[in-house]
Amino acid sequence: MSYGVGILLDDGLVMAADSRTNAGVDRVATFRKLHVFEDPGERLFVILTAGNLSITQSAVSHVAEAIEGKNGLPNLMEATSMYQAARIVGRSLRAVYEEDGAALKTLGIDFNASIILGGQVKGGNLRLFEIYAAGNFIEATDDTPYFQIGEVKYGKPVLDRLIDKQTGLLDAAKCALVSFDSTMRSNISVGPPIDLVVARRDRQAISLRVRLDENDPYFQRLRRYWGRGLQRTFRGAPGPEWEV
Amino acid sequence: MSYGVGILLDDGLVMAADSRTNAGVDRVATFRKLHVFEDPGERLFVILTAGNLSITQSAVSHVAEAIEGKNGLPNLMEATSMYQAARIVGRSLRAVYEEDGAALKTLGIDFNASIILGGQVKGGNLRLFEIYAAGNFIEATDDTPYFQIGEVKYGKPVLDRLIDKQTGLLDAAKCALVSFDSTMRSNISVGPPIDLVVARRDRQAISLRVRLDENDPYFQRLRRYWGRGLQRTFRGAPGPEWEV
Repeated sequence: MSYGVGILLDDGLVMAADSRTNAGVDRVATFRKLHVFEDPGERLFVILTAGNLSITQSAVSHVAEAIEGKNGLPNLMEATSMYQAARIVGRSLRAVYEEDGAALKTLGIDFNASIILGGQVKGGNLRLFEIYAAGNFIEATDDTPYFQIGEVKYGKPVLDRLIDKQTGLLDAAKCALVSFDSTMRSNISVGPPIDLVVARRDRQAISLRVRLDENDPYFQRLRRYWGRGLQRTFRGAPGPEWEV
Repeated sequence: MSYGVGILLDDGLVMAADSRTNAGVDRVATFRKLHVFEDPGERLFVILTAGNLSITQSAVSHVAEAIEGKNGLPNLMEATSMYQAARIVGRSLRAVYEEDGAALKTLGIDFNASIILGGQVKGGNLRLFEIYAAGNFIEATDDTPYFQIGEVKYGKPVLDRLIDKQTGLLDAAKCALVSFDSTMRSNISVGPPIDLVVARRDRQAISLRVRLDENDPYFQRLRRYWGRGLQRTFRGAPGPEWEV
């Protein structure tokens, strides 16, 4: 499994993905699942992937090769809107299905892939999409300003409580990291390093890109503070007045 | 879906289940998923269920009817150990499979059921089991003193952080309720009222049994405190020293 989260805020975009992949517990490895395509000032696309790594890597390779004119697929860097960009990324997933779908099915392997696409094309809005294995997609709205893919449940309660459109970029990054912490504590299939990017609205460029490994001093400090804070909150919380 | 949690502590046992069931979003109803069978001082069995309600209700009915001598299944109240009790409950699931399994399969419906069984037989230890749809089971040990069934992921991080064998009974009940709160906020298939029981070790009897609905003053107070505490902890947590 994997875990990825994309958050669309008034100030911009925060996106993060873990980098652990496993095929059975005896094959655990590190792969980048956050990909940036940018032409600063003109267009920015950030892609997070989860699911079968062979499928999602192939889809991203299709996108990259189309940009280089090496295949007949539409070129992401020529998309004139985020809607078009989402269509192009979805199309690359469909191309993988056309190539590998039947063979995977023969071996009983699900065509399991999901993608979060965030970004902005100059003159358009900063937008966030979740793209499904079939290449169809949905878009984040004010009501639900974030998407998660992969192992989404452990880290959802903190996002539900702490994030809204008005949250600042660094606060949202902090919240995303807390969400990763909750997930990694309860599920070994999600693991560091965590790739995280921040993009300010209307810049069409990455403002910050970091890779946090397990020993990153800030991430360690945040995890320790959060763990102690939860315990303190729990101890302080009112107990039931029941007799046992 | 459902959510149930059983926690085995030095002082005793805490078990809780929600009571929402749904067959599609247009059929949501309340059903008890926590069942107590006790002969105070002699033996106590608490059963939590999750999964297909027709399967789990039938399994519990088999257990109840066997106690009344109405079927040929072994009698839970004559079990001389918790291991035997787990075998008997597993056997009741298998009896449902024998009756309904083929017909369900015809309609493409999974035989989806899971049970947590906790309790004590006089002269034996207080023990906790998780019983799978096939009737096989595992037992909680010191390393993992709790089991969850149903929608387990949202509420797992708080249990992982806050519970160990030494946790007191009412603190564990409080933690279970926090775990329900996290789950219910993020997943509408889990809902109140919550049935909760506490049993002190070596009493072979329920010490406390409560049903908490959405308006329960204590549960409301706890949820409010927890939500505010998380927000306070989040605000106080160190932010990253990154430039965006």
